[in-house]
Amino acid sequence: MKQPVRLALLGCGTVGSQVVRLLHEQASDLTARIGAPVELVGIAVRRPDRDRGELPVDPALFTADALGLVKRDDVDVVVEVVGGVEPARTWLTEALRRGKAVVTANKALLAEDGGSLHEAAVAGGADLFYEAAVAGGIPLLRPLRESLHGDRITRVTGIVNGTTNFILSAMDATGTGYAEALEEATALGYAEPDPTADVEGFDAAAKAAILGSLAFHTRVSLSGVYREGITEVTAADVASAREMGCVIKLLCLAERVDGAVSVRVHPAMIPRGHPLAAVNGAFNAVFVEAEAAGQLMFYGAGAGGAPTASAVLGDVVAAARSHVAPGDGPGLTGLEAYADLPVRPIGQVRTRYHVRLDVADRPGVLASVASVFARHDVSIATVHQTGRDDEATLVIVTHAAPDAALAATVSDLRDLSVVRSVASVLRVEGIEGD
Amino acid sequence: MKQPVRLALLGCGTVGSQVVRLLHEQASDLTARIGAPVELVGIAVRRPDRDRGELPVDPALFTADALGLVKRDDVDVVVEVVGGVEPARTWLTEALRRGKAVVTANKALLAEDGGSLHEAAVAGGADLFYEAAVAGGIPLLRPLRESLHGDRITRVTGIVNGTTNFILSAMDATGTGYAEALEEATALGYAEPDPTADVEGFDAAAKAAILGSLAFHTRVSLSGVYREGITEVTAADVASAREMGCVIKLLCLAERVDGAVSVRVHPAMIPRGHPLAAVNGAFNAVFVEAEAAGQLMFYGAGAGGAPTASAVLGDVVAAARSHVAPGDGPGLTGLEAYADLPVRPIGQVRTRYHVRLDVADRPGVLASVASVFARHDVSIATVHQTGRDDEATLVIVTHAAPDAALAATVSDLRDLSVVRSVASVLRVEGIEGD
Repeated sequence: MKQPVRLALLGCGTVGSQVVRLLHEQASDLTARIGAPVELVGIAVRRPDRDRGELPVDPALFTADALGLVKRDDVDVVVEVVGGVEPARTWLTEALRRGKAVVTANKALLAEDGGSLHEAAVAGGADLFYEAAVAGGIPLLRPLRESLHGDRITRVTGIVNGTTNFILSAMDATGTGYAEALEEATALGYAEPDPTADVEGFDAAAKAAILGSLAFHTRVSLSGVYREGITEVTAADVASAREMGCVIKLLCLAERVDGAVSVRVHPAMIPRGHPLAAVNGAFNAVFVEAEAAGQLMFYGAGAGGAPTASAVLGDVVAAARSHVAPGDGPGLTGLEAYADLPVRPIGQVRTRYHVRLDVADRPGVLASVASVFARHDVSIATVHQTGRDDEATLVIVTHAAPDAALAATVSDLRDLSVVRSVASVLRVEGIEGD
Repeated sequence: MKQPVRLALLGCGTVGSQVVRLLHEQASDLTARIGAPVELVGIAVRRPDRDRGELPVDPALFTADALGLVKRDDVDVVVEVVGGVEPARTWLTEALRRGKAVVTANKALLAEDGGSLHEAAVAGGADLFYEAAVAGGIPLLRPLRESLHGDRITRVTGIVNGTTNFILSAMDATGTGYAEALEEATALGYAEPDPTADVEGFDAAAKAAILGSLAFHTRVSLSGVYREGITEVTAADVASAREMGCVIKLLCLAERVDGAVSVRVHPAMIPRGHPLAAVNGAFNAVFVEAEAAGQLMFYGAGAGGAPTASAVLGDVVAAARSHVAPGDGPGLTGLEAYADLPVRPIGQVRTRYHVRLDVADRPGVLASVASVFARHDVSIATVHQTGRDDEATLVIVTHAAPDAALAATVSDLRDLSVVRSVASVLRVEGIEGD
């Protein structure tokens, strides 16, 4: 039997404690898979005397000095499950520069500065793995960066935030409003007491930046991601979607068009027959379109201690195997930015809008409304009018057009005298063709 | 730039010609991903003068001598897309023994004798990749054998045959019978003129053997797979399933229970809310249950030249990268049988039955029927009775029980005088609990 592979764990909360548990419970399987045993040589936590819980490990392993632990010569692989940009970046950069393999679940750091981690990995000749950083337990980055290497990805559409998906699924299932659905999600523990990061799309945007970078071998930082949350989605929007045979999901979309990429997060209608429409509750899924492979989808638990720990352990096995038998190719991290594509702003992205207008019910209204669309070169796909006494509702779905043209159309509609109000505006995704 | 990685292609039909096309079209991306260019040095086909089609390659590359091509010193990676056990086994064993990496899409060979290929790979210190052998373009084997390495898979449930899924989807959508749906599938090119391998479940059984081996790190050969096809599924069965809120799918199931594995292929009802129920037409999907990761699903095109070629190319990149920078761990093929679990026959597998009986409509019938279930220790979950003049239909769904007990129950029901006929028997999967 070979020398053990020595692991340092940074962080020991929900995910970290599950990592410790799995390392303990699966020890003999892990040894068989790696070809050497894995030994946990240190666990960095904020308060070593209080944060160690009831774990099956020697209390002496706990330390508050994460940087010191990373620098120790007897550490081969560093596993980071703390999160946040700093001090994680300092720790992991130090580890990679020293040639230690890094396994991280830190989406904030990867989205903010994945490029510099990648550079540190290349400089140190070290492995960098981060399967747990996007869509928790779903094996996604390995298929994207390895299995599809001989193909060309054109679009990635993901449901990557469980909290918002739970809320939107509840609104669709029960017809309830956003506030009530959020309350239920909070009561059931699916939403944080402060849900901003989830409901405003910040969490999804960080994951979108990582997915976009990976899918297109280019650098997409968080600042290049267009973001809208779900707080404006109403029960009426959900009902409109239902009438159209659609559901509303918070989508993250990364697309490659004409030598550029665009990455965006916003609520959108998708047809009920689309594979993503069946992804309900706290589940996540990522739908990938590639030139040769066609349509693919990866589905699973997007968060939670055990699923995320499963992804971390998969990476630990890869890192440990590589340590036992070094030299697995030219330092592939998936964050190579060799394509170096420009990031296109949302205004240039082609999408479709679903617009609901409260209008005066009199002759000529549709003509006025239609002329606004025509002025911005936006083609209308369908119009439904419902009359109510002296006013009416118009529901218009467009063909695909640049987002800037669609946004300008909506802005002009608000100024139109026959339009009492623009009741809702939602993008529509997942429909083939223009 | 490094020396080119030299590729031999065995077979140049639907998949092979797409491999050649992708190698040509994606040449610069492949070079960037691999760190060296890929050079196609030979293509083995049956009739080199007739089988070379309109491909963008030098006609002199074509040869009828596959074994000679495999043995050439200037071949680094052998790609096999011929199919069938022999002569592919001879060619690939020779390649692996000589230390050449092998990429194969050959499910028949892997299901029949994956173990000996694995041994040849270990003996030759060569890489063996076969992502395209199961579920065509879906990246599946890499996540199963790498990403979930730190977890323990408990069950894999797949829809892995596009032809049968197309037929069953059509029967569900239109209420048509099996014969008509098969005719439509044949007319549209989704079924072969002789559909036996698909509709009798042989194709799915081969994939099930590979999936079972991979998921549980043990050896499952085709002979250990229980198999039933879809030819007995009727429009009435599909209607019954619909009434229960279910759809009928041809499932391949590989389970680990009490230190043994069972692998089976048969039609089964699954609830419409199950992620697999939304997999329609010629699409494939594999649903994985793991202890820590929970539920995962991988979805995509299961067959077709381009999707399969995409999977082959992903493997070619992995093989080529490993050739450029050798030594990627202890020869992992995913076919290591270190777990060495016994394979359990279908009779010992726990499942549920849905049984539809035509019975006489008179007092005491239900009691007689129920006593047969009780005699075999099979617990009934639900009973629905529909009367029609002097006869009635009983639809019974059981709780989980050993398949042998369920089969014996059905056999005894056939002998019961009050039972006019056992109109249908289908297993029910995808329901939690017992």
